[in-house]
Amino acid sequence: TQNYRITLLPGDGIGPEIMAVAVDVLKVVGNKFDLSFDFQEALIGGAAIDATGEPLPAATLDTCRNSDAVLLAAIGGYKWDTLPSHLRPEAGLLGLRAGLGLFANLRPAKILPQLIDASTLKREVVEGVDIMVVRELTGGIYFGKPKGIFETETGEKRGVNTMVYTESEIDRIGRVAFETARKRGKKLCSVDKANVLEVSQLWRDRITKLSQEYPDVELSHLYVDNAAMQLVRAPKQFDTIVTGNLFGDILSDAAAMLTGSIGMLPSASLGASAPGVFEPVHGSAPDIAGQDKANPLAQVLSAAMMLRYALDQPAAADAIENAVFQVLEQGDRTGDILSPGTNLLGCRAMGEALIKAI
Amino acid sequence: TQNYRITLLPGDGIGPEIMAVAVDVLKVVGNKFDLSFDFQEALIGGAAIDATGEPLPAATLDTCRNSDAVLLAAIGGYKWDTLPSHLRPEAGLLGLRAGLGLFANLRPAKILPQLIDASTLKREVVEGVDIMVVRELTGGIYFGKPKGIFETETGEKRGVNTMVYTESEIDRIGRVAFETARKRGKKLCSVDKANVLEVSQLWRDRITKLSQEYPDVELSHLYVDNAAMQLVRAPKQFDTIVTGNLFGDILSDAAAMLTGSIGMLPSASLGASAPGVFEPVHGSAPDIAGQDKANPLAQVLSAAMMLRYALDQPAAADAIENAVFQVLEQGDRTGDILSPGTNLLGCRAMGEALIKAI
Ligand SMILES: CC(C)[C@H](C(=O)O)[C@@H](O)C(=O)O
Ligand SMILES: CC(C)[C@H](C(=O)O)[C@@H](O)C(=O)O
Repeated sequence: TQNYRITLLPGDGIGPEIMAVAVDVLKVVGNKFDLSFDFQEALIGGAAIDATGEPLPAATLDTCRNSDAVLLAAIGGYKWDTLPSHLRPEAGLLGLRAGLGLFANLRPAKILPQLIDASTLKREVVEGVDIMVVRELTGGIYFGKPKGIFETETGEKRGVNTMVYTESEIDRIGRVAFETARKRGKKLCSVDKANVLEVSQLWRDRITKLSQEYPDVELSHLYVDNAAMQLVRAPKQFDTIVTGNLFGDILSDAAAMLTGSIGMLPSASLGASAPGVFEPVHGSAPDIAGQDKANPLAQVLSAAMMLRYALDQPAAADAIENAVFQVLEQGDRTGDILSPGTNLLGCRAMGEALIKAI
Repeated sequence: TQNYRITLLPGDGIGPEIMAVAVDVLKVVGNKFDLSFDFQEALIGGAAIDATGEPLPAATLDTCRNSDAVLLAAIGGYKWDTLPSHLRPEAGLLGLRAGLGLFANLRPAKILPQLIDASTLKREVVEGVDIMVVRELTGGIYFGKPKGIFETETGEKRGVNTMVYTESEIDRIGRVAFETARKRGKKLCSVDKANVLEVSQLWRDRITKLSQEYPDVELSHLYVDNAAMQLVRAPKQFDTIVTGNLFGDILSDAAAMLTGSIGMLPSASLGASAPGVFEPVHGSAPDIAGQDKANPLAQVLSAAMMLRYALDQPAAADAIENAVFQVLEQGDRTGDILSPGTNLLGCRAMGEALIKAI
């Protein structure tokens, strides 16, 4: 039996409910593939603020560091929105990314054939869309200094943030992106704003240089405004996209929404050595928390990504992904993806359906 | 007869062809409404680089300053893409915005009923979409300092740009946005990334404060990633959007693409005192330049915006907009908006159809 230490960060809102389903699914898959999981739960986000006063207690970071992988659900809620920014749930998430050095964020946006009608785009435009956004996650304007609100000589306030990338930061994420593209459709589109920003010029130069090492991957470049347009105009042109932290935040959400069902999308955040963090793309949905209405499938698919990328257990990952496919084929749906002729299940019942399918 | 001095900046690619149509249309409308135009042509972009070595010759800025309004077509092309950035066509555009102090960029994204099928989104999602993006245009990360590519102590390169807004810059664009919303659906959505960026926190605080002066306008806030999603998910929820330079660049292009026909969209860039610049949202399309295939309608609608916003001639503006509506009703189309059952016209022929319609 292979044993893994997994840190669970249920977080806020619907987090605990969907995490419970993912844990049940992992246990069943573990039995089947002779894997055992040692689950450790830790606090993050609003739940951590309520219990300890901080969004990312040191103990949480320690627990994460001592595990093979981290499964995160969702953080945030209205309740903590008025706190000063360094004490808000989001600060816990940014601290986790920085603390574990998770510089590569993989965000797939894949249309599921059973859910194609949930897209606001025409069927022929989105059918077959399968995009992987590789977003830099520990640099750029999210962390660059100087940052803050300062006073000018005339006494007025001035807000400042700095978008910074060094060559080595660009190369590091660039390599992840080329490797990712190589395992997919062998097409990489790098997104920047090199016609205006110097930091983007450096980005474009380095990515172009790096492409010499990956002659089998076809590289293209787009300006971020054009990329946002092209995602709406013809999303099938994209295979793998690589971009900085801020552009990746915006474009990965736009790409996710093309599918019409962000309740289905997992993501992975990976570093050089520390354990990776796996989490759904969607948020904590405080309005439906605790009502057994949440869609646990993105969380379950995040667990599958964890098996594949962090634990190198592709067969177990496949088993989960096939189970998700099968329940969708059966017509099982949570409220967010319900359509005429399908069956409405709660969060727990969806978990049971998955377990039956495995 | 009211006389106006208009600077024409045809620029590159299809610029001269579509500008010629707009000028013809303005002349006809001028005859009808007893307006006379004194047109001065000046160089910008690639055309200026070829003739003078600079993308924005001082003479061009002077001519613009001495006019009542500026009509710009499009700039840029492959030919100039390898020049150093301060000598590229885009630098001319940024210099024009800075030189004339054009801090407010108005970008409408309105679905035309005749062209609704050109959208990649489902009819019921986009029918009736009418969004005005008010983008700050002379601040933010486009102009903030420090900027450049520097060497670190370890000898590697580091690209840097700075996103900066002062309170007065935010208030100034905020007022334009509230006034704009007041004349439209009285709903203003301010877009920022206040959960991560301090500059956005200041932005949100000031816009919120300003809203007290506009009690009749309903203010909401969205993070930029969520705004990108909501534009795809449910664009009809938006009336007026206000945001910074970079977010406005991205979101206005995404919003434009929802309509499916960016060959139809005009824009206005306005300052406190200098003449405004009116230009299509689309680019210079070098691949079809000089072939009489370009769609001149965004250029013509930009001339209408000029009549409305800069010259205060709403009746003349209406006449142009009605003519555009009428040729579309007749089924006249350029290649980019052609659909089964409509008539293909070249750029010049479309101009003649408009003139007949006026
Ligand atoms: C919550 C927020 C800080 C975060 C981000 O901007 O990175 C989120 O939007 C995301 O994309 O994971
Ligand atoms: C050409 C470029 C500098 C410009 C910008 O980014 O502002 C363009 O994309 C626009 O939106 O007008």
